[in-house]
Amino acid sequence: MDKIRYNRKIYLEDKPRAQARNEVLAAFDLPQEKEWIPAAGALGRITAEPVFANVSMPFYHASAMDGIAVNAEATYEAHEQRPLHLKMGEQFEYVDTGNAIPPQYNAVIMVENIQVIDDETIEIIEPATPWQHIRPIGEDIVQEEMLFTQGHQLRPADLGALLAAQVTEVAVVKKPLVTIIPTGNELVSADSSLSSGRIIEFNGTVFSNYVEDWGGQPYLHPIVKDEPEKIREALLEAVETSDIVVINAGSSAGSKDYTVHILEELGTVFTHGVATRPGKPVILGKIKDKVVVGVPGYPVSAYMALEWFVRPLVCKYLGIPEPERPKLQVKLGRRIVSTMGAEDFVRMNIGYVDGQFVANPLTRAAGVTMSLVRADGLLVVPPEELGYEQGDIVEVELYRPVEEIKNAIVFSGSHDLTIDLLSSQLKRQRTDMKIVSSHVGSMAGLMAIRKGEAHVAGIHLLDPETKEYNVTYVRKFLAGQDAVLYPFLKRTQGWMLPKGNPLGIESVSDIAEKGADYANRQKGAGTRILFDLLLKEAGLSADDVNGYDREMFSHLSVAAEVKGNDNAAGLGIFPAARAMSLDFIPVADENYDLLMTKAFFESEKGIWLRSVIQSYAFKAEVAKIGGYAVVENSEPVYF
Amino acid sequence: MDKIRYNRKIYLEDKPRAQARNEVLAAFDLPQEKEWIPAAGALGRITAEPVFANVSMPFYHASAMDGIAVNAEATYEAHEQRPLHLKMGEQFEYVDTGNAIPPQYNAVIMVENIQVIDDETIEIIEPATPWQHIRPIGEDIVQEEMLFTQGHQLRPADLGALLAAQVTEVAVVKKPLVTIIPTGNELVSADSSLSSGRIIEFNGTVFSNYVEDWGGQPYLHPIVKDEPEKIREALLEAVETSDIVVINAGSSAGSKDYTVHILEELGTVFTHGVATRPGKPVILGKIKDKVVVGVPGYPVSAYMALEWFVRPLVCKYLGIPEPERPKLQVKLGRRIVSTMGAEDFVRMNIGYVDGQFVANPLTRAAGVTMSLVRADGLLVVPPEELGYEQGDIVEVELYRPVEEIKNAIVFSGSHDLTIDLLSSQLKRQRTDMKIVSSHVGSMAGLMAIRKGEAHVAGIHLLDPETKEYNVTYVRKFLAGQDAVLYPFLKRTQGWMLPKGNPLGIESVSDIAEKGADYANRQKGAGTRILFDLLLKEAGLSADDVNGYDREMFSHLSVAAEVKGNDNAAGLGIFPAARAMSLDFIPVADENYDLLMTKAFFESEKGIWLRSVIQSYAFKAEVAKIGGYAVVENSEPVYF
Repeated sequence: MDKIRYNRKIYLEDKPRAQARNEVLAAFDLPQEKEWIPAAGALGRITAEPVFANVSMPFYHASAMDGIAVNAEATYEAHEQRPLHLKMGEQFEYVDTGNAIPPQYNAVIMVENIQVIDDETIEIIEPATPWQHIRPIGEDIVQEEMLFTQGHQLRPADLGALLAAQVTEVAVVKKPLVTIIPTGNELVSADSSLSSGRIIEFNGTVFSNYVEDWGGQPYLHPIVKDEPEKIREALLEAVETSDIVVINAGSSAGSKDYTVHILEELGTVFTHGVATRPGKPVILGKIKDKVVVGVPGYPVSAYMALEWFVRPLVCKYLGIPEPERPKLQVKLGRRIVSTMGAEDFVRMNIGYVDGQFVANPLTRAAGVTMSLVRADGLLVVPPEELGYEQGDIVEVELYRPVEEIKNAIVFSGSHDLTIDLLSSQLKRQRTDMKIVSSHVGSMAGLMAIRKGEAHVAGIHLLDPETKEYNVTYVRKFLAGQDAVLYPFLKRTQGWMLPKGNPLGIESVSDIAEKGADYANRQKGAGTRILFDLLLKEAGLSADDVNGYDREMFSHLSVAAEVKGNDNAAGLGIFPAARAMSLDFIPVADENYDLLMTKAFFESEKGIWLRSVIQSYAFKAEVAKIGGYAVVENSEPVYF
Repeated sequence: MDKIRYNRKIYLEDKPRAQARNEVLAAFDLPQEKEWIPAAGALGRITAEPVFANVSMPFYHASAMDGIAVNAEATYEAHEQRPLHLKMGEQFEYVDTGNAIPPQYNAVIMVENIQVIDDETIEIIEPATPWQHIRPIGEDIVQEEMLFTQGHQLRPADLGALLAAQVTEVAVVKKPLVTIIPTGNELVSADSSLSSGRIIEFNGTVFSNYVEDWGGQPYLHPIVKDEPEKIREALLEAVETSDIVVINAGSSAGSKDYTVHILEELGTVFTHGVATRPGKPVILGKIKDKVVVGVPGYPVSAYMALEWFVRPLVCKYLGIPEPERPKLQVKLGRRIVSTMGAEDFVRMNIGYVDGQFVANPLTRAAGVTMSLVRADGLLVVPPEELGYEQGDIVEVELYRPVEEIKNAIVFSGSHDLTIDLLSSQLKRQRTDMKIVSSHVGSMAGLMAIRKGEAHVAGIHLLDPETKEYNVTYVRKFLAGQDAVLYPFLKRTQGWMLPKGNPLGIESVSDIAEKGADYANRQKGAGTRILFDLLLKEAGLSADDVNGYDREMFSHLSVAAEVKGNDNAAGLGIFPAARAMSLDFIPVADENYDLLMTKAFFESEKGIWLRSVIQSYAFKAEVAKIGGYAVVENSEPVYF
């Protein structure tokens, strides 16, 4: 046990990111090391010094064609009316492309322009000009020519130039060794069996892959316990063996965040806290001659901090500029609120609808890895901005090629498990297309179509008056707009209950009376509307239901919530209950339909989407899930 | 020896490239194979099937902060005026970020907002709201959720999502095995000692690296002799073991181009010849169920054909769209002439001068690997166009990031070996800057400055009247333009002669009288102007000089030419002679100066360039070459 007690340090700095970056870059002053490697295996490596050609290419005068080598002066008489005969060995020599031109000759006549008379004789009817169809010495590469400066990243064709110039070994910059130290008592490896309070260590793997991608050599240290002595030991060893050290996490200001104290003890701390959201609890320091970067624990914060502070170090070592992501002007579909004084990094979905790029923020929670997975781009709100209004045109950094964004079908509205299958089937048939979906609920999906932010919305909106699905809503909210409602699925909603139904719930009244923890859906979700109708019909109100105010955003989230708690209940679709091995009591059959803009419905993408829906392969996959029927020969309703 | 005699087939088809591509893609119908690999090592791989989460993340209600877990309802009384005390174990529990929330609690209060009274007691002055600072089950990932469709290329953060969802093994598409067969009697490996007529085999290495880059698994077959039996054998073996076969070369119509005949014998040929320049002699066919691509021998043709016909096959197998290069609108600095009926692929240099992207064609010779190495982009002239005029705005595909192009200093004019050193020194001090130079001669360099196509031009132009360098030329050709002449180097021109000077040449008269093969420079080159003056002063004319009409574009090219021929002579600078171990007889000292636009001279880049020129490091490197002196305390001349 470590005897030293660290004081709790609660407040972090708010240092501007650029300043923190410049300071750590200035402090990182390791001399670049180089290594000689075979040129054939040097793809992607960075030249460590200027590279000069060892030989010329070609290094002799070479024939550029299949044909005969001649002395041009000896062919001047040739004419269509006065064909000229040449003798092999005396006046010409056969040459193939690449052959050396014998010293007595200075031109090549193409094989197409000679007439073979016999084994020894050919005929020509046109003179040759000196040096025609000859590749002179050094046409491609001249001996001693500089092929590359240092700091050049070698591409496939570059390797050809190296070998052609007989540079078989090339001096490249050694990959800087980046040791990554994951810390935490709660961490377990991904193949462990999980128990409450255990967290899978995956940041280290992600870091390693980023480092490798940027041209460094990662070393992923085994997980270190949250004990000062262990952390100290790991850091001291790492600074001896590596060029850059990354430690994750313990970079914040909690009772077990020892890193900053240990760094102060063993070396220097330049920065503890940067003015960013997320990513604030960063530590930048140095032990001996090695920079140490302490990265926050939440995945999104962690990956951003790594890119802000570790990538520049790797690039500096390699002697290359930091790559920049392409940028794109987009229209904001929603308002973005930001804190004054901090740089805000907002992951964005981008859709290409009606000839315009429209971007909407994903969750800003720093713990949500999937927000990075799903993001099409990143919006950086500078510290002096309070945010942007809906409709503003802003610039985002792109996480995907713009073509991929352009080809995506933007799906909004209610969550249904078949949409993923549809996405997968579509991609199987058209690798350049995909569905990008956000689960916002039926009403929000309908509004996305109204505002031109989505191509398709999945909706299941029950009209409490008419008991009809969807049509009245579309009529009311899309009045005057060209829209098409495409009947898609019949599916069953029901009570999702813990295995064995311990509370014995069979109706909405049971949920209220037995005091179940109800896992509710968000406002505007079709399932929420259905639940509210059931409540009303039973003469109950929101106050009678435990947990009514907490909102989940998908059937699976409700099912996950129910699974963890024997006292819980939820409303949702059958496949979600089955996926989590829950009990399911049917409540109502409903229509889940696809609302599309007319323009999309009639577009190539729209036609393609419908043909996938009607394909045998897709229907077979839906049938396998159970609890669904795809509407056969769907008759679109035009509005 | 093979007994079969193949007829010479002289004419190739002119099939449109798109048609050839579609046909070969349609013919390529191998079923995709998949393999299970550890998720942590799956960077860049393509998912072979949809991937679903095995567990939720978090899979329990977790604390999002360091602090205490409480029951929110039990905190409602807390107020600044009425602090509330809570007992550990009864009313609260300490939790760190990531800890599970004990089932009796439903909110977390941050450590910053509690006051520790004693080991058992804390005080709060604000109530908690239910579920505050709690990450609910599945906040990031919900069990059974689809994380990725098939056909997704895994990025570092994606691997984090996989591990977080406890997907430790992932099904990815097997990399298609591409066998590459180099053929040719003249081919030798890069580490062989070269003799006349031998060519280093480097295409195979380049192909392998392209295939790897695109996501395939290359296998580079040993070099196969140009003998039908050997080629047949290699092909038959390759189609058994691999998914795609590439054979290089023998794809043209010469006497040793057997490939098409063998393919016809063993399988089917779809295409022999596409309507492109370069790249025409392509063969597309099939043996059994495997596609075989015959690629031309010249490197540029070869790499283009590989990208046109092999990359789509690899992408089809992997189930991903073909990546597209970013595009850029540029102004043409020179006219581009194209053949009607053929798609022309012109490698381009692009410079960013005066706020405009200006592009100039590089050599169009298909044998010049360096034209691909040097190219910033590619201009595709469609078959129906006869070309473009100077000043036209055209779209090019980019080979480099646009930022790299924007940051480059465009150097034109005369060739000098120190320019490479300057480029290298500049990059050492500013990794984001570089010099892109083209060797066009002094006069063309001066014109490039006049037309706003370059930032800097190296010139050494002797005025035959005044015997003065550069100034009179600038005055004459840049009248009325803001330009600056920056004195740069003193250097020595002299006769470059084969070792031992076998012809005994000491003057220009000797060259004429002794009938030396003179290696001349291009019109407008400073060295050509000097030679013409020497001729004139000796009372001689061009007709008196053997080889006067053949033009070389650099000192090194002249030196390489002289080196290969005991009867040769050339005029050039000392270091070029020394690099090739030639004899050197000084003729004249000259001024090699840098002409710049005034805007560039005063820009950040211009200031940086001058500071590098005046740096100790650069001067020391120049001194090491010998035959040079950098002008000290250079006094710029303004025009």
